Amino acid sequence: MAGNQQLPETIVLGPPHVFQTHADAFSSRFRLLKPWESPLPLAQFLRAQAQNTRAALCAGFFPLPATVLQDLPSLGLVVTTSAGLDHIDLAECRRRGVAVAYAADIFSADVADLAVGLLLDVMRRIGAADRFVRNGLWPEKGIYPLGYRLGGKRVGIVGLGNIGLEVAKRLEPFGCRISYHSRNKKPSIPYTFYPDILKLAVESDALVICCALTEQTRHLINRDVLLALGKEGFIVNIARGPVIDEKELVACLQAGEIGGAGLDVLENEPRVPNEFLELDNVVVTPHVGVYTGESCEKMFEIVWGNLEAFFDNKPLITPVME
Amino acid sequence: MAGNQQLPETIVLGPPHVFQTHADAFSSRFRLLKPWESPLPLAQFLRAQAQNTRAALCAGFFPLPATVLQDLPSLGLVVTTSAGLDHIDLAECRRRGVAVAYAADIFSADVADLAVGLLLDVMRRIGAADRFVRNGLWPEKGIYPLGYRLGGKRVGIVGLGNIGLEVAKRLEPFGCRISYHSRNKKPSIPYTFYPDILKLAVESDALVICCALTEQTRHLINRDVLLALGKEGFIVNIARGPVIDEKELVACLQAGEIGGAGLDVLENEPRVPNEFLELDNVVVTPHVGVYTGESCEKMFEIVWGNLEAFFDNKPLITPVME
Repeated sequence: MAGNQQLPETIVLGPPHVFQTHADAFSSRFRLLKPWESPLPLAQFLRAQAQNTRAALCAGFFPLPATVLQDLPSLGLVVTTSAGLDHIDLAECRRRGVAVAYAADIFSADVADLAVGLLLDVMRRIGAADRFVRNGLWPEKGIYPLGYRLGGKRVGIVGLGNIGLEVAKRLEPFGCRISYHSRNKKPSIPYTFYPDILKLAVESDALVICCALTEQTRHLINRDVLLALGKEGFIVNIARGPVIDEKELVACLQAGEIGGAGLDVLENEPRVPNEFLELDNVVVTPHVGVYTGESCEKMFEIVWGNLEAFFDNKPLITPVME
Repeated sequence: MAGNQQLPETIVLGPPHVFQTHADAFSSRFRLLKPWESPLPLAQFLRAQAQNTRAALCAGFFPLPATVLQDLPSLGLVVTTSAGLDHIDLAECRRRGVAVAYAADIFSADVADLAVGLLLDVMRRIGAADRFVRNGLWPEKGIYPLGYRLGGKRVGIVGLGNIGLEVAKRLEPFGCRISYHSRNKKPSIPYTFYPDILKLAVESDALVICCALTEQTRHLINRDVLLALGKEGFIVNIARGPVIDEKELVACLQAGEIGGAGLDVLENEPRVPNEFLELDNVVVTPHVGVYTGESCEKMFEIVWGNLEAFFDNKPLITPVME
């Protein structure tokens, strides 16, 4: 127990999904504070037990606003298990001199894989066809409605960062024609750049949302964009739910004003609008873009490495550079 | 009606799925015999009405054995709407001097797309995750079981023809390592060739079945091959059901001896073994590999072109070369 006391103290916020499988390893190197095991509300727990805590391991879904940060006065590092940073008040971290480390691009390939999987699923109706078979309809009806070919389709990538580029690279050999919308035109990228998201939607048969959630991208995909995408247009979102105005997406799907949607993220997840579940041209996965065994292993390696670097006064492995 | 009588007579066998949407166009150019509209059994219909019929438009699922061919004594051409030829007695056609035309490689891209879609679906558990969401389990359970990353996985292609090559091309940017089994090593193909299917299965994390169904490939994927693929191995079949010994596949899946299966074809389709429907790591689509609107359009163009060429005594567009 005395030994344990000498380990550097780290508070775990969340906890991250699948943390349990790594908890023993982490406990052998860091003294872990686990507020979710305490009956105290978080603020009280922090004030009672975390006044000297210097590092936080934070799940990607766990909000870290200024009100929480101020109850952690000794904090010097937040390591989030996510690539996205929209749950953390970065300005407040900066003001308090709290460094932030993150998962950087380790998830990009897996998220891009899921994006392509969702696009294939919704355009070729894979999930709906499987449901048709499971409901015993194949012998009775014989044929399932035709799907859409990917080849030759114009795919607009919204946000051409690591994930967007990985999606584009995968879709090229399917014969998709790639273009993109982004804050700025990317140098040395061969795809057509559309500064106007509405123009991209007009010129696309499918949109794949890969951008970060910021005040600029919240509800970027509004009713006008969806109508511009059109009745035979498809949308895939593996970014963050609120990039799409979900109420309008529901309305467009119900009215047949867009062709279909593949969604790994929702605006108020895990709450799923009932309307989605009644539609055959919608595929919803429960925010699993990063959830492969391989990604999770790598993620905990990086979290561990950042915590060690911090307590050893070495440079962080994957610091957030603003 | 007199005009109609002068149109070249073609018997439609099946009819092919989605033929109805093209029936009017075909009727304007060919006098169509439609045995399925007659109360007569097929043999009687043929003997009564098709003794002078020179061409047959045959659905891919419609068997054309010697017994049917002998009831069509004037036949000079069979055009099948499929790329596969396993439903036609080719030796009997040759003996009778009946030319055969087929869909050639027009479906390859769409079938390859579906193969990749099924592999992504089963490895990343997309369909099962969608079912989890539709069953309302996301809010309650929070997290869905981890899937498998495609990157770095060893994918064995069984049958490296047009479709197999298209699958390989698509999987390369996912970071998959491709090898293949085929009757013969293909010249100028960079992928590792395994003359022994069992060795390929040992060395693969996933098998994608893309070969033709022949007496040599029937039950090529037997229990030994499935066990060699192993507990974390996945199998996708977009070729023909009987290439896999389905009874053994069911047993291996039930016992957890392979990781999962994505099947567009079954051994006795449309009959689906009930066991598949109780498993979450199986995706079954109702033989829709070729069923996109785009492929069907192209297919009927080719069928039309072959019939016209035949009746005009011109070379067939897509003859089967044996």
